[in-house]
Amino acid sequence: MKARVFVTLRSGILDPQGKAIEGALKSLQIDGVKSVRQGKLFDVEIEAQDPAAAKALLQQACQKLLANQVVEDFEVEIS
Amino acid sequence: MKARVFVTLRSGILDPQGKAIEGALKSLQIDGVKSVRQGKLFDVEIEAQDPAAAKALLQQACQKLLANQVVEDFEVEIS
Repeated sequence: MKARVFVTLRSGILDPQGKAIEGALKSLQIDGVKSVRQGKLFDVEIEAQDPAAAKALLQQACQKLLANQVVEDFEVEIS
Repeated sequence: MKARVFVTLRSGILDPQGKAIEGALKSLQIDGVKSVRQGKLFDVEIEAQDPAAAKALLQQACQKLLANQVVEDFEVEIS
């Protein structure tokens, strides 16, 4: 089973990397981008009986390893 | 308009960070994860007339800045 995990900064947490990208896009004359926030993405292959079990497994992986829940949120998408 | 850009390593390109995560999950007794590949995620807010224009703008941003197309692929998702 394939899944994708998204880890993003919580709103209110500063994202200097996103700000740097906004500046770089402006200097490349790519206009129209109002804001950028960078996050992480994990493409995971799992062995699980059903999508619900896969989701539970990945939520556990996020809580224990992939996301720092003080400053980050995560989403799990089973495909 | 909001959009999400995914930048992932092309298949065949080694991902040592993903391998490290696989190892860490095993040592945390989170079993069932067969493979992990890490990528980047950008949450972007754009000013564009329509979704097609937004997509074109972000494809340009990926080609010029966000993705290194020698080793990375990108996907743009307008929401």
